[in-house]
Amino acid sequence: MTERTLIKNLAAATDGPVSVSGWVDTVRDQKKVQFVVLRDESGAVQLVHPRALELGGSQSDPATPAPSELASEDPLADVISSLSVGTFLTATGELKHDERVKLGGVEIKLDDIAIAAAANPETPIADDTGVDKRMDWRFLDLRQPKNNLIFRVQTTLEHAWRTYWVEHDFIEIHTPKLMASASESKAELFEVEYFEGKAYLAQSPQFFKQMAQPAGFGKVFEIAPAFRADPSFTSRHATEFTSVDAEISWIDSHEDVMRLHEELIVAGFTAVKEKHGEEILAAFGVEVTVPTTPFPRIPLAEAKRIVAERGYTVPRNDADMDPEGERQIAAYVKETFGHEFVFLTDYASSIRPFYHMRHADDPGLTNSYDLVFNGVEISTGAQREHRVDVLIEQAKDKGLEPEELEFYLDFFRFGAPPHGGFGMGLSRVLMLMLHLPNLRETTYLFRGPTRLTP
Amino acid sequence: MTERTLIKNLAAATDGPVSVSGWVDTVRDQKKVQFVVLRDESGAVQLVHPRALELGGSQSDPATPAPSELASEDPLADVISSLSVGTFLTATGELKHDERVKLGGVEIKLDDIAIAAAANPETPIADDTGVDKRMDWRFLDLRQPKNNLIFRVQTTLEHAWRTYWVEHDFIEIHTPKLMASASESKAELFEVEYFEGKAYLAQSPQFFKQMAQPAGFGKVFEIAPAFRADPSFTSRHATEFTSVDAEISWIDSHEDVMRLHEELIVAGFTAVKEKHGEEILAAFGVEVTVPTTPFPRIPLAEAKRIVAERGYTVPRNDADMDPEGERQIAAYVKETFGHEFVFLTDYASSIRPFYHMRHADDPGLTNSYDLVFNGVEISTGAQREHRVDVLIEQAKDKGLEPEELEFYLDFFRFGAPPHGGFGMGLSRVLMLMLHLPNLRETTYLFRGPTRLTP
Repeated sequence: MTERTLIKNLAAATDGPVSVSGWVDTVRDQKKVQFVVLRDESGAVQLVHPRALELGGSQSDPATPAPSELASEDPLADVISSLSVGTFLTATGELKHDERVKLGGVEIKLDDIAIAAAANPETPIADDTGVDKRMDWRFLDLRQPKNNLIFRVQTTLEHAWRTYWVEHDFIEIHTPKLMASASESKAELFEVEYFEGKAYLAQSPQFFKQMAQPAGFGKVFEIAPAFRADPSFTSRHATEFTSVDAEISWIDSHEDVMRLHEELIVAGFTAVKEKHGEEILAAFGVEVTVPTTPFPRIPLAEAKRIVAERGYTVPRNDADMDPEGERQIAAYVKETFGHEFVFLTDYASSIRPFYHMRHADDPGLTNSYDLVFNGVEISTGAQREHRVDVLIEQAKDKGLEPEELEFYLDFFRFGAPPHGGFGMGLSRVLMLMLHLPNLRETTYLFRGPTRLTP
Repeated sequence: MTERTLIKNLAAATDGPVSVSGWVDTVRDQKKVQFVVLRDESGAVQLVHPRALELGGSQSDPATPAPSELASEDPLADVISSLSVGTFLTATGELKHDERVKLGGVEIKLDDIAIAAAANPETPIADDTGVDKRMDWRFLDLRQPKNNLIFRVQTTLEHAWRTYWVEHDFIEIHTPKLMASASESKAELFEVEYFEGKAYLAQSPQFFKQMAQPAGFGKVFEIAPAFRADPSFTSRHATEFTSVDAEISWIDSHEDVMRLHEELIVAGFTAVKEKHGEEILAAFGVEVTVPTTPFPRIPLAEAKRIVAERGYTVPRNDADMDPEGERQIAAYVKETFGHEFVFLTDYASSIRPFYHMRHADDPGLTNSYDLVFNGVEISTGAQREHRVDVLIEQAKDKGLEPEELEFYLDFFRFGAPPHGGFGMGLSRVLMLMLHLPNLRETTYLFRGPTRLTP
C-alpha cells in the first residue's frame, strides 16, 4: 500500500515530504495562492499551492495575463481550480508546521495531486438538508465528521461489551434469522418465500439464545440484526435493527440479569468516555457520564404512582407505561438520584410474553424489567420460565397454541437451568448517549416501512 | 446469584462446602454408594453419595430391608435413583481432593440436590446418531464437550479478529439485510413480503460495505448473517451463513487486501492456538498451526497448469477452478511450501462479478483472489472498480442493466477512493480448522433448503 499518513498523525510528524489521501472539503481558489481543505477518516488538513503566476509579476501589472491564459505554465493550479467538493485524491507535498494555521497547526505545500475519482460538482445535500433527504444520500451524509464519530463510538461501545463478555466466559452465538414460525407477536412478522414454502424473519434471537441454556452453554451473547414488520414512523422504530443480546444460566431472578446488564453498560460507557469523551463533547455538546451502580430499580406499579404524583396519568388501560411516563419517571430519577438510567421492574404478566417467569407468590407479576436511559426504553430483560409444564400453561393463558411452539417447548423437556437475559437496541443506546433526536442518525442505513434504499 | 463454582475451578478450590450446577451426564446407582457425573459448560465432576443403608448393617444380612423399603430414611438416595440423564440441578456438598478419582482428581460428597428441571428419560439421540437427526435435537447435541468447544473456539476467533480490526482503526458497521434489489446473482435471492411491496435478503454486505468507502470511513468490518437461496445440499453450503467482511480504502491492488487478510488469519489462529490448542488436540486430534506470512500466492492460470501436471484436468469450460482442483492445488502447496493456505489470484473477468477491478494491461483478468484453506475455498477478495464510467461498462459487459444499479452506482459519482476487501465464511473456517466434514457441525443452527428448525 502507498505510504499514506493519516491526517490525525500529521501534527506529530516531522516537516518534510508527505502523502495524504482523502476527499476535498473546500477549495479556496485565490489569485495568488490556492487552498484545499482535504478530509480523511481521521481529520482535515490544509493543502496550499502558491500559483506559479506569483513569480511572474504583480497581479496589478496590466501586462500580466489572467490566470486562465497561464494554464499551461502551472498545471497543478489548473487541477486545483477544477476540483469539485467530494473528489477523492492523494496529495503529495511538503509538510510544514505553522502555528498560524488554524486547522491543526500544519499545512502541506503541494507537489502533486492524483485524483482517484472526481465528484459530480452538484452535491445533492447541504448542511441544512432534512433527515429524510440526507438518508437518500447517506454515503455523503456520513462524510460529516459528527456522523463518522457516531460509528467510531459504536465500534468502541460494541468492542467494550464483547470484551466484557469474553473476559467473563460468555460464548458468542449466531442464531438463525430464518425461522419456521414467529418468535414474538405474529402481527409484526416478515414472511419470506423459502423454496416451495415460507419462512419468517427472526423478530429477536429470543428462542435460540434460550436454546443455548439447555444446550449447556452457560452464558451467551449475540449482536445481530432483528426484523419487525412494524408500520410505525416514530423516531425510535425501524423495521430492521441491531439487537444486543445476552442470556445466562443459573440465575436466582431477574436481579442477576440486571446486575450483568448494568456492569455491561458501565464497561461500554467507560470505554467510550475514555476514547471519545472530548470529541463527543465538542461535536454534540454532551458530557458522557459513566453511570454508578447499582442503577435505581423501581417496580412498575410504584413508578406509575410516582408519575401520577407528578401530575401525569398514563393514558393506557393496560398496566403498561407509555413514552411520556418513561420520560417522567426518568426525570424523577434524575432529580432524585442524579442517575440517567432506571430499571423499571416487575411488569404485569398481562403485558409480558408467555415465556417471562411469573412471581412465585403473585402470578400477576413477572420477573422482568425494562431499562430506561435518558427517558427512553432501550431494553427488556427477564428471567425466563424454564419449567415446561408452567411454560405450556402460560402459553395457553396467552391464547397461544402449544402445538405451534413444540420445537421451542422441546428445549425444556430434556432438562434446563433457570436462566434469563435481555435484548437491547444498539441504535437507541447511541441515540440517547449522544442526545440525538432520531435513530436514523445512529443507524448506518435506516430501514422503515417506506425506506429500503440505498 | 447463588454462589456457584464452575467445575473447571474445583481442582484449584480448597476442600470444604461447595455448590455446583449443571446437568446429569451419568448415574451409577450402586447398592452401597451412588455416583453421579455432573457436567457444566466448563467440565465434569463426580458427585458421590454413600447410601444411609450402609450404616444399618450388611447387605447380606437377611434382616436388612431392601433399599426401596428404606426410602424414607435416605431421601437423597431416592432423588439420585430417580435422576434421568440431562436433568439440570444444583448439588451442594463437601469438595474433597482425591487423586484416585480419575475425573479431575476431586469429588463432591453430596449434602443435597435441587432439581431445576428434570429431563424426559427418553433421550432422542445417542453418540452414534447421524448428523441430520442430531440437527433435529441440536440443543442436546451441543451438550457434547466437543461441540461446546467448537463455539468457544468461534468466540475466541471472532474476538481476536475484532480486536485486530479495532486496534487498526477499523469502524464496525451493521449493513441492512433488507434490500430493494440483489447484491449478487438474482438466481439465489430470497424474496420478502415488505408491506405493500417486496424486499430481498442481502446475499452479502458487498454494496454497503463498499458504500463506507465513499462515505470516508477508511476501513470497515462486519460479521453478520448473509442469505443465499442456494438449493445445494453439499457439506459446504447453507442458505444462511455468517459472513466475515472487511473493506479498506486507498489500496494499490488486491495485494493490499491479501496482506490484511493473512494478518487477520494469523491473529485469529494465534489466539485460538493459545487458548484452545491443547483441548483441540485432545478433542479433534488436530494440531492448530499458525500460518507463516506471506501465504503462497498463485495466479489461477498457473494453478490450473500445476494441477494439470499432477494429472487432474479441471472439468469446466469456464476459467474457474472446481472443488477437486482446489484440493489438488492445496496438496501441491502443502507438499511444496508446507502451507495450509494459498491465495489463488487474478481470476478471469468472465467468472468474476462486474464490480471487480480488471487489470489495467489485461481486461481479461481481475485484481481478485480466492483464499483456499486445507483444500477448500473460504473467501473471495478483490480490488473493486471505483471509477463509475468503467463500472457502468463492466456492468453492461455482464448483461446487467445499469438502471437497476443506480443506487449503487451513485456511491461512486460523488468521489470515491480506490478500495477492496473480502468476505469469508465463518463456519467454513472453523470446519477446516478443526478438520470436520460438514459445516452443519460448526453452525449453531444450520439452515438449508429443507431445514428451518429448530
